[in-house]
Amino acid sequence: MTRMTVPHSSRRAREIQESPIRKLAPLADAATAKGTRIFHLNIGQPDIPTPPDYWSAITSQLPPVLAYGPSNGLPDLRKAISGYYGRAGIDVAPEEVLITTGGSEAVVFAMMAVCDEGDEVVCFEPFYTNYNGFATMAGVRLVPVTSSPDDGFHLPDDEAIESRIGDRTRALLICNPNNPTGTVLKREEVERLAEIAKRRNLFLLADEVYRDFVFDGRSHASVLEVSGCKDSVIVMDSISKRFSSCGARLGDMVVRNPELMAGILKFAQARLCPPTLAQFGAIYMYDHLGEDYFSGVTSTYQSRRDVLLECLSGVEGVFFQKPEGAFYAMVGLPVDDTDDFAAWLLRDFSDAGETTMVAPGAGFYATPGLGKNEIRIAYVLEEARMRRALEILGRGLAAYGA
Amino acid sequence: MTRMTVPHSSRRAREIQESPIRKLAPLADAATAKGTRIFHLNIGQPDIPTPPDYWSAITSQLPPVLAYGPSNGLPDLRKAISGYYGRAGIDVAPEEVLITTGGSEAVVFAMMAVCDEGDEVVCFEPFYTNYNGFATMAGVRLVPVTSSPDDGFHLPDDEAIESRIGDRTRALLICNPNNPTGTVLKREEVERLAEIAKRRNLFLLADEVYRDFVFDGRSHASVLEVSGCKDSVIVMDSISKRFSSCGARLGDMVVRNPELMAGILKFAQARLCPPTLAQFGAIYMYDHLGEDYFSGVTSTYQSRRDVLLECLSGVEGVFFQKPEGAFYAMVGLPVDDTDDFAAWLLRDFSDAGETTMVAPGAGFYATPGLGKNEIRIAYVLEEARMRRALEILGRGLAAYGA
Repeated sequence: MTRMTVPHSSRRAREIQESPIRKLAPLADAATAKGTRIFHLNIGQPDIPTPPDYWSAITSQLPPVLAYGPSNGLPDLRKAISGYYGRAGIDVAPEEVLITTGGSEAVVFAMMAVCDEGDEVVCFEPFYTNYNGFATMAGVRLVPVTSSPDDGFHLPDDEAIESRIGDRTRALLICNPNNPTGTVLKREEVERLAEIAKRRNLFLLADEVYRDFVFDGRSHASVLEVSGCKDSVIVMDSISKRFSSCGARLGDMVVRNPELMAGILKFAQARLCPPTLAQFGAIYMYDHLGEDYFSGVTSTYQSRRDVLLECLSGVEGVFFQKPEGAFYAMVGLPVDDTDDFAAWLLRDFSDAGETTMVAPGAGFYATPGLGKNEIRIAYVLEEARMRRALEILGRGLAAYGA
Repeated sequence: MTRMTVPHSSRRAREIQESPIRKLAPLADAATAKGTRIFHLNIGQPDIPTPPDYWSAITSQLPPVLAYGPSNGLPDLRKAISGYYGRAGIDVAPEEVLITTGGSEAVVFAMMAVCDEGDEVVCFEPFYTNYNGFATMAGVRLVPVTSSPDDGFHLPDDEAIESRIGDRTRALLICNPNNPTGTVLKREEVERLAEIAKRRNLFLLADEVYRDFVFDGRSHASVLEVSGCKDSVIVMDSISKRFSSCGARLGDMVVRNPELMAGILKFAQARLCPPTLAQFGAIYMYDHLGEDYFSGVTSTYQSRRDVLLECLSGVEGVFFQKPEGAFYAMVGLPVDDTDDFAAWLLRDFSDAGETTMVAPGAGFYATPGLGKNEIRIAYVLEEARMRRALEILGRGLAAYGA
């Protein structure tokens, strides 16, 4: 009997990176099935409650027909986001805002709007690992400039950056505050990047999803505040972290270049619209939650950051930089391969019936071999649970080494 | 003073098709601003109420944190969809279902999973116009086989189809029941396509979003029912039309080829998850709304189809085929350019302060020049409003000709 021929899936489907944040999910499921309790430091899913009024904003206006909305989002939400920026002293018109299905879609639209297949985007590693997946889907090559824990993962000098810019480079991509390092770029760093973008005729794509969460009295410097680069800047944003509503799947883009916005609108029209209900809730949050809300949430994350530093400082062989914002840290461990260690924690280890899940670091780098001894920790759990999660991590390290 | 250099948006952002369904929106907004009432026959937005229990299913389980869900969707929803197929006599395991953000994302994932940049998909024109946008985003070339109103837009013979299959062809793409023609493929047509796909080692992608809506006692033939092509078939589906909840942005894919599903799961992981709340509602609908619900909705659409036929048969120079399912019709008009006519209806015409919006036909074809005298009508309004909308269309035609 001959074996039937079956067509093969595409190269991109075969080669796209498995998410280091989610690829261990089957091992986690198996651990849970064995009765092990897992502390999730692997994923940026905050435990901060979704603001209760979010729900009433939705339930108070349930429509008879859950209809398509405009492709660029509900006008009231675009206006509310314009107001949010206005309160931060940044002038953004509602027409410069396009609502997306999560920050994820904002990144995909941005990449597709500035790159054709085979074009390149220069980014700074370690970077948000899902950029890899988006780039593969968009046919874009990510060219990494390596940033170093020795200077807190801040920007390398111009020469190091410009040396990676080539004929096919179309954009620089930053995440500020940074996922996975927690680094907050200084205003002069953001200005320096805008200067390079201008000099080399590139777009500057800025993922500013964590812009509200900066610590120790810092202020956030947005690319939207740099003068003279209105037409070359795209901001990618999300309500997922801002209002602890990751499952809503709402984000947005700020684009002040009308030609570029016209192209992005056509991408948006193809997929019809972002989720309608979630927009009702988001309008409420943007209109009613301001500085008080953000400073409360930020101080929660800052305290957790301090707990992280305290707990990790007691663990031998661990090295890390003090995060300046967001709620992530890249942490070096005294192991050769954190992919193996993270899997081992789920598969072979438990401490009084509990274990900790972390994201292996290699997937946050594009340069092969880098990040193999690092993990990304998302400090999104309340203090007692985080202390326990990090205690388990320490005990796991000791047992793994032995 | 020298003009500043600004980088250009990508070729794909410039060249992607403007949605013929949505591109006239600015003219519609202007008409509304003038006080003109618009009947929307341009967009497949049903006026059928979203089932009221959909809302209670959501509001009864509002979580403290609106969290990310699994990348392939909530397990209960995947199980509910398996049950839906089971009741139709089609065996689909929950593991063969992946939840997407609308049917739109299902089409994008399918194209990306079977094609690399530059690969081709053979489809049948007129086709759902947004396939153009998805193909541009995915770097895929759509190769059209023209179907003809003379035989109700049913499939051409094998030779006509196979003559368009070349070295880069990776898949055949159908929409059944068809948007925009309303054609429902016969079982032997679906089997014939599966046979061609097998013979030529291609995937068979089937958009079966309208599968519940078939008229005049027909039954729907799914590609999932054809034996021997388990590994090469992808079904793309949505709850938007099935349960009148377009704004929920939920769809799914059925994939029985594990290698292919593994690749698609990686795409899904990159964008994290589909909307969480909407899934609560969808689970309820799949679990509780069955044959009674669908036959009620289908008979509503069938009556509207009959109203459409009745109203159009009185208009001189109009030609069309009797739709067999879904809620669309491609209608030929006695004008040279329906792009111009559709814009004129919004900009320059009104009848007692009212006008009708339709989708120009050319965008539903890939072959240049075709469809210029056709429009797509979505018969999604209740009878009295549809009669009035078509009366206006008739009067508009008379005035436009004069």
